[in-house]
Amino acid sequence: MSYTAPIRDMQFALAIAGLDKVAPLFGENAAPDLVGQVLEEAGKLANEVLAPINRSGDIEGSVLENGVVRTPKGFKEAYKAYAEGGWNGLPFDPEYGGQGLPWTIAIPVQEMWNAANLGWAVGPLLTFGAVEALTAHGTAEQKQTYLPRLISGEWAATMNLTEPQAGSDVGALRTRAVREGSHYRISGQKIFITYGDQDWTDNIIHLVLARLPDAPTGPKGISLFIVPKFMVRPDCSLGERNDLRVVSLEHKMGINGSPTCVMAYGDGGGALGYLVGQENEGLACMFTMMNNARLQVGLQGVAIAERAYQQARDYARSRVQSRELGSRSPSGVPIIRHPDVRRMLLTMKALTEASRALAYSAAASLDLAKRAPDEAERARHQARMDLLTPVVKAWSTDIGVEVASLGIQVHGGMGFIEETGAAQHYRDARITPIYEGTNGIQANDLVFRKLGRDKGEAARAFLAEIRETEAALSAGPGDDLAAIRRQLAGGRETLEAATQAVVAGLDGDPRRSAVAAVPYLKLFGTVAGGHFLARGAVSAVEHLGGGASDSDFYEARLAVARFYADHILSQAPALLHPIRDGASAVLALAEDQF
Amino acid sequence: MSYTAPIRDMQFALAIAGLDKVAPLFGENAAPDLVGQVLEEAGKLANEVLAPINRSGDIEGSVLENGVVRTPKGFKEAYKAYAEGGWNGLPFDPEYGGQGLPWTIAIPVQEMWNAANLGWAVGPLLTFGAVEALTAHGTAEQKQTYLPRLISGEWAATMNLTEPQAGSDVGALRTRAVREGSHYRISGQKIFITYGDQDWTDNIIHLVLARLPDAPTGPKGISLFIVPKFMVRPDCSLGERNDLRVVSLEHKMGINGSPTCVMAYGDGGGALGYLVGQENEGLACMFTMMNNARLQVGLQGVAIAERAYQQARDYARSRVQSRELGSRSPSGVPIIRHPDVRRMLLTMKALTEASRALAYSAAASLDLAKRAPDEAERARHQARMDLLTPVVKAWSTDIGVEVASLGIQVHGGMGFIEETGAAQHYRDARITPIYEGTNGIQANDLVFRKLGRDKGEAARAFLAEIRETEAALSAGPGDDLAAIRRQLAGGRETLEAATQAVVAGLDGDPRRSAVAAVPYLKLFGTVAGGHFLARGAVSAVEHLGGGASDSDFYEARLAVARFYADHILSQAPALLHPIRDGASAVLALAEDQF
Repeated sequence: MSYTAPIRDMQFALAIAGLDKVAPLFGENAAPDLVGQVLEEAGKLANEVLAPINRSGDIEGSVLENGVVRTPKGFKEAYKAYAEGGWNGLPFDPEYGGQGLPWTIAIPVQEMWNAANLGWAVGPLLTFGAVEALTAHGTAEQKQTYLPRLISGEWAATMNLTEPQAGSDVGALRTRAVREGSHYRISGQKIFITYGDQDWTDNIIHLVLARLPDAPTGPKGISLFIVPKFMVRPDCSLGERNDLRVVSLEHKMGINGSPTCVMAYGDGGGALGYLVGQENEGLACMFTMMNNARLQVGLQGVAIAERAYQQARDYARSRVQSRELGSRSPSGVPIIRHPDVRRMLLTMKALTEASRALAYSAAASLDLAKRAPDEAERARHQARMDLLTPVVKAWSTDIGVEVASLGIQVHGGMGFIEETGAAQHYRDARITPIYEGTNGIQANDLVFRKLGRDKGEAARAFLAEIRETEAALSAGPGDDLAAIRRQLAGGRETLEAATQAVVAGLDGDPRRSAVAAVPYLKLFGTVAGGHFLARGAVSAVEHLGGGASDSDFYEARLAVARFYADHILSQAPALLHPIRDGASAVLALAEDQF
Repeated sequence: MSYTAPIRDMQFALAIAGLDKVAPLFGENAAPDLVGQVLEEAGKLANEVLAPINRSGDIEGSVLENGVVRTPKGFKEAYKAYAEGGWNGLPFDPEYGGQGLPWTIAIPVQEMWNAANLGWAVGPLLTFGAVEALTAHGTAEQKQTYLPRLISGEWAATMNLTEPQAGSDVGALRTRAVREGSHYRISGQKIFITYGDQDWTDNIIHLVLARLPDAPTGPKGISLFIVPKFMVRPDCSLGERNDLRVVSLEHKMGINGSPTCVMAYGDGGGALGYLVGQENEGLACMFTMMNNARLQVGLQGVAIAERAYQQARDYARSRVQSRELGSRSPSGVPIIRHPDVRRMLLTMKALTEASRALAYSAAASLDLAKRAPDEAERARHQARMDLLTPVVKAWSTDIGVEVASLGIQVHGGMGFIEETGAAQHYRDARITPIYEGTNGIQANDLVFRKLGRDKGEAARAFLAEIRETEAALSAGPGDDLAAIRRQLAGGRETLEAATQAVVAGLDGDPRRSAVAAVPYLKLFGTVAGGHFLARGAVSAVEHLGGGASDSDFYEARLAVARFYADHILSQAPALLHPIRDGASAVLALAEDQF
């Protein structure tokens, strides 16, 4: 049940993602040897502090006692070590105490926290979202008050969107905000509030979506408020307790270390809240939070896949069962020698590496969209990041679930027994395709917003990247690159045809586009993942040709890319049919015919 | 969280499976109106007695107190009602008190128990296996002693195969059996013993695999023994307690209602055991148990899929969220109106119906292999059943997991909260691809044994069935049948090519065949499922053309078959590549390169 941060794999993925283009824009903070140090140090905290309390955290769970949440043993101390290490401020503005590192480096570090202990890591994740939102939309005073304490980790933050009748449909929310001088009085009930309370920090800054009495109905009548657990005095010391409380904790299937709270605001007359941005423009602020959070939740898919893979690989190396196929020896061998176990492990590994490479590449565009010297390049990377974000979120979290399920299968019967830990990954992973916008909503975002707004231009730019990779594969030596190129070309042609069909379909019945959305996103992810692994294969062959000392590592990269091409990317062309011609049967049935 | 046995769907699947050919061979017991009554009555027990204690059974779990297992509240009473209703004897020999019904009818009834309460239903399942084994291999005296009491449900049985070092590799077991006059003394530890103890029956007949001191090593040195919990006197009253005990219960991820026991035999000097069949031929006896059990575990996949589907459909009809795409009304609609939710529900429904039709058709061959008047037909159905059994087991249980996972997704955040029940199905389903031979082992069975022994003859006979269905589709009217035919032809051609490649590959490196096995089984299941749904579509069109009164039902069958063709069967051709050319990358890596 141990975890070892896969630093070598991460650095390889960073190289594919183009860290060499990003790092110089961030000065000495992001110098190559410093990056290695950051990953090493983060790896220690993940491996030695967070991973060991993953299973105990699952068993103990967070509990609510007399209105106060107590997190599992070790969680508070781990948070203290994390905050003191400066990890909470890694990608944030040095003006407010951040480390000013690129997201491209922060993202692998985030992967480690999520892999080591998902139930713990969802806590800091929400604070990240709040820092993003306040940085983009807060007043100077709000920034001065909250950012230094959130970035240092002294305080934490939550995001309060969901209500019983307002889940995916956030516009249906009813929590009320009434103007009262320079502040507002907030009242209503919120559900699914991750770390709505905890014993980690002295104060918790709740970001709450609410509706003013005179607001328009629907999503255009939502405003965002800062609602601190304890009021903050002008000198930033803590004042009275605000009018909010935890009503109960949800009984979840997984990430049981994390408290998922039902929150009541304003039972005593109204919690004090402070507007962020403009009235009725809360949705834009929320999207600032959520865009970043979507990238990070996608990363949770990568993380849980890596964790499940490591666990299954270690088990397969140690579990002896049955003799080897085709061998004359009657002795049992470690099951990693059995072809189907290898096939499962390679599926896990290839999907993990592909989704990692995609997520890191999206993170690189996030940085380049902000810092690239050329404006056109910034715009290009912004569009690329916008395009890739829903793919990272949805494709990677589906992979997290699939890989965790394969992890159980590799364990056989032992996988179903909680003691091994494989089952926890399967349970934990299952929330990631749901929260921060279900994967269906991500697919709609990809099709209606991302393809819709530029008629597929960003997608075509991405397809051009793939064609460059195909050319590099053609130029390289050996059967493997040729085999990979064939599958990549097939996938890319399919994605071209599908993109064209989906863009054309946007002029028609939107329900037909919505039927195509999830298969289209799956196709996009599958081809994109193949593209990044293929780039890695080209790089590996170059290293091997140059006489790299660690040929084992590069041979494995080539084999994994080849496996992905033959077993996963080869499935891409079949997705064209449901994308183009799948709508009739879906829309035919009346509701009572289901 | 309710369950309603889908009797209409089951009868439709029975018609596709050819119940009209099976029933006449079983006399008045299987007359058409009686079948309806059997299903109705079973449905009442499933819906009203077993389903309501599914979630409470999950929460309470079975517990071990002072060496005795106590099952969850209501489980014992449900078993009593089940036994008194004669359900335990449905498919068994009337000579020993069975009802003598065909398996083709028993199987839908079994589906109901599994769907209503999987944690409960795994109990009777094991007794079924023991009845099969004793019927085939027991002495006249053993049959007289045990069969009437096992068939009536007065006693129950267990299967004891697994030991810590002997899971899939059953030949590695070490439990010892020493001859002592007319009986044997058994000692050793067994794990994963489902319902190794319970509070349902006065006696439990453990079937235990063990090894004689002079037995050959490996699987050819295994013998099967009857080891009763309480000794049975000549008059069949119960005598002393045998030397066996439950050491502990496993802490599982799902099917928590069922006690999964670690059993110790012979701590006090040796448990008394009685040989079944011949010494060292226990494996053949075990396969008798397991073949039937594999069909039934496959059915568990169908069952959990049906249960998860019903739950998700009901939720999608009642949960209002977001306005309808393309509609001008701002009001929220039930989420079943959203295209991607419909796509998910149809995926669930289509996979459930396809796997059900396959399982019922295999059951029909089981009956026809025993009772068809013509010897060649009996042999043909035996080969067909042998071929389909691993497909039913593996493909249907993978479907159970996939559909349960989609069920959570339809629920959104509520799916991750245990109270809704969707999460339990996802946890429960996950054991089914593992027990009774992992799905990897099923795939090896399909490729090495089933294709190997007749060089693909039975598979080609099945492909000929598909071609007949294609002809029927061509002869029928309308776009839907034509669209289904195109996809079915593509799938069938792929399965032909893959079968040829796999059979040819059996002359080469068996490791390459083993890499192809799981994708081949998936292809087989996908095409077979499409074939059965296509038959259903032809039948539905005939009914609609004949002016059927319940056109809603038949229209739905057609739409589901069309959906399956466009969204699922269309994926089949892509599987040819990994089957034919997928081995290189899998076998390339050294163990430490993983």
